Amino acid sequence: MSSHHIVKDNQEPALIIANGAACSDELLGQLLEWSPVVVALDGAIERLLAKRIKVDIVLGDFDSITKALIAENQTDLKFISAPDQNKTDLEKAFDYLIANGHPAVNVVWATGRRADHAFCNLSLLAPYRESLKITVYDDYSRVILLPRKFEKWYPKNTVLSLVPLGLVNSIRTVNLLYPLNNESLTLGYRNGNSNAAADDGIVKIEHESGDLLLMECWD
Amino acid sequence: MSSHHIVKDNQEPALIIANGAACSDELLGQLLEWSPVVVALDGAIERLLAKRIKVDIVLGDFDSITKALIAENQTDLKFISAPDQNKTDLEKAFDYLIANGHPAVNVVWATGRRADHAFCNLSLLAPYRESLKITVYDDYSRVILLPRKFEKWYPKNTVLSLVPLGLVNSIRTVNLLYPLNNESLTLGYRNGNSNAAADDGIVKIEHESGDLLLMECWD
Repeated sequence: MSSHHIVKDNQEPALIIANGAACSDELLGQLLEWSPVVVALDGAIERLLAKRIKVDIVLGDFDSITKALIAENQTDLKFISAPDQNKTDLEKAFDYLIANGHPAVNVVWATGRRADHAFCNLSLLAPYRESLKITVYDDYSRVILLPRKFEKWYPKNTVLSLVPLGLVNSIRTVNLLYPLNNESLTLGYRNGNSNAAADDGIVKIEHESGDLLLMECWD
Repeated sequence: MSSHHIVKDNQEPALIIANGAACSDELLGQLLEWSPVVVALDGAIERLLAKRIKVDIVLGDFDSITKALIAENQTDLKFISAPDQNKTDLEKAFDYLIANGHPAVNVVWATGRRADHAFCNLSLLAPYRESLKITVYDDYSRVILLPRKFEKWYPKNTVLSLVPLGLVNSIRTVNLLYPLNNESLTLGYRNGNSNAAADDGIVKIEHESGDLLLMECWD
């Protein structure tokens, strides 16, 4: 796979490559093409080197030998050391992008493999509600944190799972197969999985409080 | 892979094979060997037939052609039709096992692939706290819902992630690398990922309220 350096504009989302299951080369290629900056998390870099993918920033704790090895294969690469034990590498990457003026980021390889990482990575969209527009992609899913009021056009039968991170109150929907009318969802006890667009058209989802993920999924 | 029918005793956990990412044949073989009953969820059955794995029960909605095709390849197979739109196939499988006197179940192929299914499947351990002992396995993880008081011997440095399903209060730990002393965890805002056993010995984890997953994970 070749270099991604075609567009360089911070208005386009940055790209973070985490260390979960790899997505298809096709999806990765599409995301790389438009990214002004590519951040690889510690652990993913060796897998990216094997694919000859060029990254701009590597975030993690490396020994000098590993650094030299990586630098040998990649030029203009920036290492960000991030020793804070209270944050995961993904949180540190989000913080880095915010500090450098990025308004949005796509994230891949954040799901699959270790269940703790996958579950935690998706939950991390919540605390960044106000500071970073995050979209997580894998081969089966596109995940965002819903704003309080959300509207988007979908084709009929598009699978739309509403996943509450804890308790989410007063959810109202328009044009969903299983509508919610001022109802609550609670993770584990009442999930909103495998809902769908009822017809071609605008789907509206509102909620008053809590953190609600929207997962567009396909098999 | 050959038949699993060696032990038939409801004291051993049943096995549910869901429709997420397949685990290694080795892990699946170990779990099959001791299971008194094997339940496959709709969608997994074709993948299991391809591996020549014998199941006892298939749960889902099948047309007659599919049923005939499956029955041709598997004898003594029971179909459970479960049309309830308010429950996922995994919940229906849990309910079936409880109704048939099973105290415990192992679940595989429940993580990976679609993010909504993976996230929802793990959250489902919470509502079954009192009725079914559930353990979710994949190639990188072993996940349980913690009882209010938990004790288990672990080797030093075993990765133990504490994952709160929403808000979990008054967590107290003994022999963890990052101890918690009457502290709360909140999904997304304060996760307890990548903790570990501080030394060889008993790890104790107590919590007063909420639902707390323990994920033993490895790379």
